[in-house]
Amino acid sequence: MPININAHIAFRFDQPTDFLLQMEGAVIPEQTLYGKGVICSASEHMARVPGEDMIGDRIWLRCQGDFTADYQVSAHIDRHLADISSLNALRPHQLPGETVSYLFDSRFCPADRFQPFVEAEFANTSGGARVQAIHDWVAGNFTYAPGTSDATTTAVDSFVERRGVCRDFAHVVVALARASAIPARFVSCYAPDVEPQDFHAVAEVFLADPGGDDDGTGSWHLVDATGMADPAEIVKIAVGRDAADVSFLTSYGMAQLLEKSITVSRG
Amino acid sequence: MPININAHIAFRFDQPTDFLLQMEGAVIPEQTLYGKGVICSASEHMARVPGEDMIGDRIWLRCQGDFTADYQVSAHIDRHLADISSLNALRPHQLPGETVSYLFDSRFCPADRFQPFVEAEFANTSGGARVQAIHDWVAGNFTYAPGTSDATTTAVDSFVERRGVCRDFAHVVVALARASAIPARFVSCYAPDVEPQDFHAVAEVFLADPGGDDDGTGSWHLVDATGMADPAEIVKIAVGRDAADVSFLTSYGMAQLLEKSITVSRG
Amino acid sequence: MPININAHIAFRFDQPTDFLLQMEGAVIPEQTLYGKGVICSASEHMARVPGEDMIGDRIWLRCQGDFTADYQVSAHIDRHLADISSLNALRPHQLPGETVSYLFDSRFCPADRFQPFVEAEFANTSGGARVQAIHDWVAGNFTYAPGTSDATTTAVDSFVERRGVCRDFAHVVVALARASAIPARFVSCYAPDVEPQDFHAVAEVFLADPGGDDDGTGSWHLVDATGMADPAEIVKIAVGRDAADVSFLTSYGMAQLLEKSITVSRG
Amino acid sequence: MPININAHIAFRFDQPTDFLLQMEGAVIPEQTLYGKGVICSASEHMARVPGEDMIGDRIWLRCQGDFTADYQVSAHIDRHLADISSLNALRPHQLPGETVSYLFDSRFCPADRFQPFVEAEFANTSGGARVQAIHDWVAGNFTYAPGTSDATTTAVDSFVERRGVCRDFAHVVVALARASAIPARFVSCYAPDVEPQDFHAVAEVFLADPGGDDDGTGSWHLVDATGMADPAEIVKIAVGRDAADVSFLTSYGMAQLLEKSITVSRG
Repeated sequence: MPININAHIAFRFDQPTDFLLQMEGAVIPEQTLYGKGVICSASEHMARVPGEDMIGDRIWLRCQGDFTADYQVSAHIDRHLADISSLNALRPHQLPGETVSYLFDSRFCPADRFQPFVEAEFANTSGGARVQAIHDWVAGNFTYAPGTSDATTTAVDSFVERRGVCRDFAHVVVALARASAIPARFVSCYAPDVEPQDFHAVAEVFLADPGGDDDGTGSWHLVDATGMADPAEIVKIAVGRDAADVSFLTSYGMAQLLEKSITVSRG
Repeated sequence: MPININAHIAFRFDQPTDFLLQMEGAVIPEQTLYGKGVICSASEHMARVPGEDMIGDRIWLRCQGDFTADYQVSAHIDRHLADISSLNALRPHQLPGETVSYLFDSRFCPADRFQPFVEAEFANTSGGARVQAIHDWVAGNFTYAPGTSDATTTAVDSFVERRGVCRDFAHVVVALARASAIPARFVSCYAPDVEPQDFHAVAEVFLADPGGDDDGTGSWHLVDATGMADPAEIVKIAVGRDAADVSFLTSYGMAQLLEKSITVSRG
Repeated sequence: MPININAHIAFRFDQPTDFLLQMEGAVIPEQTLYGKGVICSASEHMARVPGEDMIGDRIWLRCQGDFTADYQVSAHIDRHLADISSLNALRPHQLPGETVSYLFDSRFCPADRFQPFVEAEFANTSGGARVQAIHDWVAGNFTYAPGTSDATTTAVDSFVERRGVCRDFAHVVVALARASAIPARFVSCYAPDVEPQDFHAVAEVFLADPGGDDDGTGSWHLVDATGMADPAEIVKIAVGRDAADVSFLTSYGMAQLLEKSITVSRG
Repeated sequence: MPININAHIAFRFDQPTDFLLQMEGAVIPEQTLYGKGVICSASEHMARVPGEDMIGDRIWLRCQGDFTADYQVSAHIDRHLADISSLNALRPHQLPGETVSYLFDSRFCPADRFQPFVEAEFANTSGGARVQAIHDWVAGNFTYAPGTSDATTTAVDSFVERRGVCRDFAHVVVALARASAIPARFVSCYAPDVEPQDFHAVAEVFLADPGGDDDGTGSWHLVDATGMADPAEIVKIAVGRDAADVSFLTSYGMAQLLEKSITVSRG
């Protein structure tokens, strides 16, 4: 069933300001988008550069005064889905080069600090079963609580406070997976049933394909510890090491959010 | 004049342990290496993957017991050098896509937190002059003090304590440059005159080529606020967002450093 | 000239909640208060305990639903004022026992981290001249910016971001004074000319009385790096190691602020 | 059975340095000390001030060059011991004024951050049963691991890393108790069976005496989540909000530890 996205944002910039916009669904094999790219109000210029791992575009804009962006597409998802808990991890030396960066610490996911915890809490699991255990632990121990975190909240903060929003749940899953030597990245996305309706964020982990731990092939798999989004219905916008890489707006100057309205529906 | 590198490290692993080694000079146009790659003691396997930005190799190894790595090369540097303070910055929308990640916050360089400081302290500078001012400020206000920082020290910690080693000086320069909307990355390297002799680390910033702010071309330039290394004599090992990406050893299990001996000389 | 205080606050508690109120001027020799104590709406009970250093009262209350507190007094200040920059510090072993706690690190003032900075930045000063230099440095380098900090912001955060409100300015002065081995405490207070009108906070340092470095006598002196309050017009509410000790409301459960109106005037 | 303490420390100060020593058993009703006070090598001066809550002495000294302190006593403990899990908490408004500070956040125990965790993890407990549950949770989930923490490690760090030494175990217990609105302080002490032999640290919580929740009387009770020390055999040195208040040596200048030898035995 297609996923229909209708997104509208409005910002005000008091000064001429450069900013980066990442709110379009990514043009990648696993999802086909019907509709136009984002339609922006007048801007001094507009330049597209590829996002991390060549997934999605980042759009540079420059504007003073009011700025609006509208995005309307219908997406058809054709993503390979798997029972994560049955998959193995690739052994580190089998990991493709481009996944190695996703083992490292990042701004909001200081994974090294969680090694003693994952070793103790998830001692008897590995690979996909470890990821499933991490998912279940976060889902079972964290409270989804809008307003309790902000743009500076790290996975350590969330781990201590055991609450947050989708961004925070994803950061904790990413950090715990990396602490388990499993590459993990952060995915900004659209999905139906997100309450309240908004941009969404989930984790993505790299695991061996069935039989892949022999020949070193693997794939990325989506993990949403908030339980709100079904991997079969997620429209990816961008990926990155953590939220720092995929903000829908990164501004080099003061930006005032005037409006944000996201509707994602099926059918 | 060639730069001669003689590096020897020894580790002990009590358990069979996967680890990543990054200690070879990178094979890139700006430096030519004469000699063999790193020679390691027996390992269960060895796999090379490219480093960040395809600069240098990361080597996966797996070993139990004692491990040694020896690296001996002579490097000829042919790097374009410039008077940084005379260069302009590219405007953000002109930045090549692969440099954009280097504007974002990373584990040890939470650049967003330094925006008010750079705006106040370096108000009347921009581009290369801003980078020069950052260099001079760090060089003038920080003390090189081995033993005062460790692998968890961030640019914020160093900024507050105004001291550290090469890693910390580089983190602060990187963070302040990014806070100025100038892409900045972290470079692990070899260089003569580093006291005490050891691996070295410097910052690298992306600035417009002369006239490049018209046609959008730019280049990376090395910046060493410790003052110990001359860009004309630096042998790059690897680049990354910060030290998390370019450790000479990243181990997935306990590793005990037994020996590290680095000699870098001219001639 | 008397200082007239008119304070009104209203909170809502969804559950029966214990909370601590600290909003009355302290009854201490240096300030005489004309008027009643705080008048609260119905509470399950009310118990007074002395504040830190026996200065001011903390009032325990317990309430569900809406709660209001009104406080109206006229204060006459008779405080000994001094030119801080002319005073010496007491040598540590001369410090009265009750001031020693104010040398130690606290939640928001991790003074130990600032020792390298104070030694470098204020190298040629000591005692009151050091305090004056700290005051001038903060006043000259920090921006008073409501909305840029919150209840979790530490002196380290403020030092890095060089901005904040009265609470943050006071935390930085306290931390830098303690890093200089000068006892420093945090004072919540009322003062005219605070913009916008609100509770205020300043630092207080312990210095030798003139000639006191011979006989070991000293006194506390108010320091306001925001420049908004004159020590001759400050009405102290409470003192403590930092803001954690002197919040006007500390709640053991969710509290919703409905209203806060503070008017402080002369005459 | 008496507890025999034999402590010897040696430091070197390159410059004339003021420092504070806290290594004597406290002279308080619950423990009687037979023997002399600490015997120090020559010092420019020596001044005693009372410790926090008037428990134990802090000794100011000033010295250049080598400094030694020797302390030898036999202690007889006569402490009221209770089954903590059977005690109630006092309701906040019943708490004696001098215990209220021990509800607040401190440098190493930012208790406010743990409120969501304690409410979730220990939901069905209160008072002494809550303290017992906290003790059991820390004892069951943390690893005693010398060398994994240092003087800057906070309860948040330890909570994330689930390991540390006595100092860290005590900080976590203190933070979780305060987050439960139970006053908690940090106690430096001597105790037999501490492995390796060293100064020790435990938590202390304030709970209602049996029947005390009617008349508002309560007492402090020792809690050692490391399991190494028996409250009946602990010789208290000092109490405070956390380790910042009770270091055995707080130095205003560089101090080099040359030797520390602690022997605590029964009989």
